[in-house]
Amino acid sequence: MGRMRPVAVAGYGKTAFGAFPDRDLRSLALEACARCLQDARVEPAQVDAFYLGNFAGPSFTGQNHLAPYIAAEAGLSGVPATRFEAACASSGSAFYHAVNAVAAGVHEAILVCGVEKMTSRDTASVTEILASAGDTAGEIRAGSTFPSLFAMIARRHMHQFGTTREHLAAVAVKNHENGALNPEAHLRKRITIEQALAGKPVADPLTLFDCSLISDGAAAVLVTSADRARDLGVKAVRVRAVAQASDYVALDRKDDITTFPAVRAAANHAYRAAGMESGHIDFAELHDCFTIAEIIASEDLGFAARGEGGRWAAAGCSSREGAKPVNPSGGLKSKGHPVGATGVAQICELTAQIRGEAGERQLRRHAVGLAENLGGSGASCVVSILGAM
Amino acid sequence: MGRMRPVAVAGYGKTAFGAFPDRDLRSLALEACARCLQDARVEPAQVDAFYLGNFAGPSFTGQNHLAPYIAAEAGLSGVPATRFEAACASSGSAFYHAVNAVAAGVHEAILVCGVEKMTSRDTASVTEILASAGDTAGEIRAGSTFPSLFAMIARRHMHQFGTTREHLAAVAVKNHENGALNPEAHLRKRITIEQALAGKPVADPLTLFDCSLISDGAAAVLVTSADRARDLGVKAVRVRAVAQASDYVALDRKDDITTFPAVRAAANHAYRAAGMESGHIDFAELHDCFTIAEIIASEDLGFAARGEGGRWAAAGCSSREGAKPVNPSGGLKSKGHPVGATGVAQICELTAQIRGEAGERQLRRHAVGLAENLGGSGASCVVSILGAM
Repeated sequence: MGRMRPVAVAGYGKTAFGAFPDRDLRSLALEACARCLQDARVEPAQVDAFYLGNFAGPSFTGQNHLAPYIAAEAGLSGVPATRFEAACASSGSAFYHAVNAVAAGVHEAILVCGVEKMTSRDTASVTEILASAGDTAGEIRAGSTFPSLFAMIARRHMHQFGTTREHLAAVAVKNHENGALNPEAHLRKRITIEQALAGKPVADPLTLFDCSLISDGAAAVLVTSADRARDLGVKAVRVRAVAQASDYVALDRKDDITTFPAVRAAANHAYRAAGMESGHIDFAELHDCFTIAEIIASEDLGFAARGEGGRWAAAGCSSREGAKPVNPSGGLKSKGHPVGATGVAQICELTAQIRGEAGERQLRRHAVGLAENLGGSGASCVVSILGAM
Repeated sequence: MGRMRPVAVAGYGKTAFGAFPDRDLRSLALEACARCLQDARVEPAQVDAFYLGNFAGPSFTGQNHLAPYIAAEAGLSGVPATRFEAACASSGSAFYHAVNAVAAGVHEAILVCGVEKMTSRDTASVTEILASAGDTAGEIRAGSTFPSLFAMIARRHMHQFGTTREHLAAVAVKNHENGALNPEAHLRKRITIEQALAGKPVADPLTLFDCSLISDGAAAVLVTSADRARDLGVKAVRVRAVAQASDYVALDRKDDITTFPAVRAAANHAYRAAGMESGHIDFAELHDCFTIAEIIASEDLGFAARGEGGRWAAAGCSSREGAKPVNPSGGLKSKGHPVGATGVAQICELTAQIRGEAGERQLRRHAVGLAENLGGSGASCVVSILGAM
């Protein structure tokens, strides 16, 4: 547009991810918001809007109308408070809209929070609630769940490109390895390829180790203009580009289930807006709701050639020491996946790495990071590229 | 901001509101979207984003991730598709964000749709789902429902300002009168003051005739730049201002329950942005989820003096022939209240009136219209002002 101004993430904060039976949704969100505002050295009164990413709070907790429910108690009473929903890409979408609003000068400082409280429900209920992000009148009524949808995707990828169970397992092993270094990860437990392969079957060919976790957690970032971020005197990070795209919800409406057009569209848009290509990305947080999703994302983003994502991962290219580290946080697989929080949590990890504050899991090359946040079986996608100021 | 460009509603379309047992949520939304695009003479491929307002589709219908679920079948596959939730102000909020995005040049043409499918659930379930827009851990757990919360508000307004049951009934009679002229209204039935007063008690002092309807329906508008609207050669309407504000969700957190600070904040913001005051407004669509809500809104918007809203309505000031016609469409009371559709449906009515296409219910003075869309018991509010190009 030309008239857009540079945007920054001026602060971030998150809760640990895990199962917290004594915490409710709002207390998690408030903790993340408070940490974020403290990090950005901003008072609640300096925030002009509250953007909340949440997928299914009403179904998980019974509470709807969550944006003012949280904003007022965070001291933001009065500002526009809106909840954004795009399945597991909900808070990625909130971030996308916030960056646009600040870039365009609609707002000066937006507190963007993502939250989900999942563990108060039994696993069958959680699976059913998550399935509402699929086509409930079609694939879901026919008996599918998200594990079984991604199992079909994995099976097809194996058939078409020779991807193997060992390739999937390599992604799980790497993400568990990375998550073991993350003090805020849900599961800090290294596993071996043998363990991953011997995992309890969930939906063949996916085992327990191919599936992300059911978690509670919240994450928040302060989105502001680059100028304001400099005035605040904080270690800010520049938002190079954010893009969102959509596709059919039902898997059976897609021509090819081994690639996600929404990911490709969002990526192309973001690369173009940032004046970059995949080679410029130093590291990435990819949406590994299932190991196969990380493999396909690495292809759709141009990190690996089409069909080669499994071999690329198994060769170590996406490990901490590889050419393109993926999911240094541990990813959804090990860090945890409170679905509405995941998009903003990815932005938090990018920010921590770019600022050089990632502790034990700090990467050597960390100038430019990319986050890919997926909703459903690919019907929503947000791709963000962040870099040094 | 200075750099904001003029924005227009270049087309509108809606379904009739009512109980449609053979229609699902998506078919309603698709009908409204198709009518809107036809009215705006725009092809799906010319739309660059889809903004959906929906409050509780997942709870009412089991289907979540509704934005791409609708957008892809509307032929918009690929564009950013996001659901906005702010309780009963959900599609008002979607409209607010769309106007900002177009004003700022982020998008050129956004299809904004609001939808809700409520009648497939029994009344007790609907009441429970609606109650999730209140504080479920507080007032709702203590036994409140929205009728009882607004009954408390009405009771307090009566105590403090001398508002009477007759004042409430006058609002109901007027909105039923107006709705009888609206071919797309859910309930086209004139009532007398006596009937309204003798209505079945719901939550004292509110009777059945003080409460809005449980409806199915969808509404859509095409938000684009004023320049583009002129190029399209359609009868467009200018968006003079839109503002959104928030407040505490729980009624017990408010100092005074006879006024809604979020309405006042959004109104002040919108009046300032439009360079107008209440006297410039020719007519309004107000959020009469309960008759008392219309009375309080008329005060918070400056149409009536504080505490005088009941007497103002009973004196006929808000009737079709009055100084400031309110809810010429019939309002939520008679036109119907598919909650997620209501905000955009208000914009449709403003557009129809300003274009002079409101048929039997066309107002004589219709140059500038205001819409007030409320969420919960006042925790969310969107105020929009539209006028001739």
